[in-house]
Amino acid sequence: MTNDNDTTPASGAQGLTPAEVEERLIDTVTASFAGCTDERLTQLMTSLVKHLHGFIRDVRLTEAEWTATIEFLTKVGDITDDQRQEFILLSDVLGASMQTINVSNQPYKNATEATVFGPFFVDDAPLIDNGGDIAGGGAGQPSWVEGVVRDTEDNPIPGARIEVWEADEEGLYDVQHDDDRVYGRAHLFAEEDGSFRFWGLTPTPYSIPDDGPVGQLLADTGRSPMRASHLHFMVTAPQMRTLVTHIFVEGDELLTSDTVFGVKESLIKNFEQQSADTPTPDGRDLAGQTWSRARFDIVLAPDGA
Amino acid sequence: MTNDNDTTPASGAQGLTPAEVEERLIDTVTASFAGCTDERLTQLMTSLVKHLHGFIRDVRLTEAEWTATIEFLTKVGDITDDQRQEFILLSDVLGASMQTINVSNQPYKNATEATVFGPFFVDDAPLIDNGGDIAGGGAGQPSWVEGVVRDTEDNPIPGARIEVWEADEEGLYDVQHDDDRVYGRAHLFAEEDGSFRFWGLTPTPYSIPDDGPVGQLLADTGRSPMRASHLHFMVTAPQMRTLVTHIFVEGDELLTSDTVFGVKESLIKNFEQQSADTPTPDGRDLAGQTWSRARFDIVLAPDGA
Repeated sequence: MTNDNDTTPASGAQGLTPAEVEERLIDTVTASFAGCTDERLTQLMTSLVKHLHGFIRDVRLTEAEWTATIEFLTKVGDITDDQRQEFILLSDVLGASMQTINVSNQPYKNATEATVFGPFFVDDAPLIDNGGDIAGGGAGQPSWVEGVVRDTEDNPIPGARIEVWEADEEGLYDVQHDDDRVYGRAHLFAEEDGSFRFWGLTPTPYSIPDDGPVGQLLADTGRSPMRASHLHFMVTAPQMRTLVTHIFVEGDELLTSDTVFGVKESLIKNFEQQSADTPTPDGRDLAGQTWSRARFDIVLAPDGA
Repeated sequence: MTNDNDTTPASGAQGLTPAEVEERLIDTVTASFAGCTDERLTQLMTSLVKHLHGFIRDVRLTEAEWTATIEFLTKVGDITDDQRQEFILLSDVLGASMQTINVSNQPYKNATEATVFGPFFVDDAPLIDNGGDIAGGGAGQPSWVEGVVRDTEDNPIPGARIEVWEADEEGLYDVQHDDDRVYGRAHLFAEEDGSFRFWGLTPTPYSIPDDGPVGQLLADTGRSPMRASHLHFMVTAPQMRTLVTHIFVEGDELLTSDTVFGVKESLIKNFEQQSADTPTPDGRDLAGQTWSRARFDIVLAPDGA
């Protein structure tokens, strides 16, 4: 047995310290994008590499943790299909979706604030007239929602397209069922004076789908999978910035712990509870049910704002 | 038309600036892990969130780019199966795999350096005797590889388990075919004096699988999908740190542009070309083929080093 090797310095190839080896790798990887002709893509990849390597270095990621990460992402991929988008859920519960909304929708005057899109929008929701019902047979307390779509200079925006979608009182969206049922979603158009109104369901709290790897991550980290009660909106009009947002229910105890971090104070609305014998705004007979009503006035920013 | 709204400050909810809104979201997300009882997991998630949000803020990620990222990851998931691991390829081409190797295998005395594992190892490769052939019918120039497995104090490690695997001269591993063929992989054990020897194939350069989203990313960023020629090793022995590495071929022009950033100078070996009439070390008749020979002495660090 010799001890010759004890004099070997604890350093990497070519006399570099471990930190220098790690930094040189980051330089090499970012330099590999030098041939990219898309300037924005180069910027994205360079920043991604710096932050990804920064994470690995900061936590001194072990190979077992790297393997667990690959396995986690593989499971996220496995459960994702046309009806289930686990990558969006992952982005949502890490606050990445909400942060993207923040950085890409800078506040503009009094324009309505945006929040997360979520994985449950579908493109071909039914068309309803103003005053129609988006519930489509979905179970829950009827809710009358009305408002006006305007620009930031108070002009109404006639014809603005309003997409609305929500879960039923069981906390499930139509697309979470294994069949083709459609409920809790529709689109309508603002009238000449910008006004709109529809019947929907009073939003109730629900769990995001938690039977997959993202649910397991929430469980492993001691987090709740519950979302604060909300009703989704997407509002589009020519020359206006598309608004993707929700309204939340005043008094909901989940407002401060929404698992996707989507709540903004300006989006909390009073869903005023009505007794069964209160006349409905359009004379609809609710057969003895209680109902709620909420007002959501929408202000769109101009495109490019 | 009124101009009342022109006095609204360009700031988010509750008078915060956009930067404050963004920073507050990061605080809220990291605070959501306060109930996690696994200290290491809390550390990992907190750092991940900070770097992920740092990336989104630095590049001012647009919603369209977020959507493109979700679609990219969905495609990575779609193409991944038991035989194809696109998440590992993605980690590899971003240098994340190599950086993990760097931070989790700190240099120890003269121990052999580690490099990336890659996606093509399989658990149940055939056992061969020393001097046997790992080629298993795979096409390529025969190559005689020999060496000794020792610890950092120069003691041989008899019985060390040596897994070797490589692509054929077409650049394909056995598992990349649609059938069950096995070639270019085996395991063997070091002899009493730590020595080992086997016939393999002279490594040749090849493209990583580039018909998927990772290949598209490389194309979009002007990068080559080529890997420098290499032969994979995984060496295990009781009480020793597992070594996952490759040896590379001296003179290969891809050494400086390996698409997974796996090359380390200490791992570049001379695969010395032999004429067809040079006698083979074990008297094997190569039927008039040229061949190569390489020496790879392996030094294992102690477990926990």
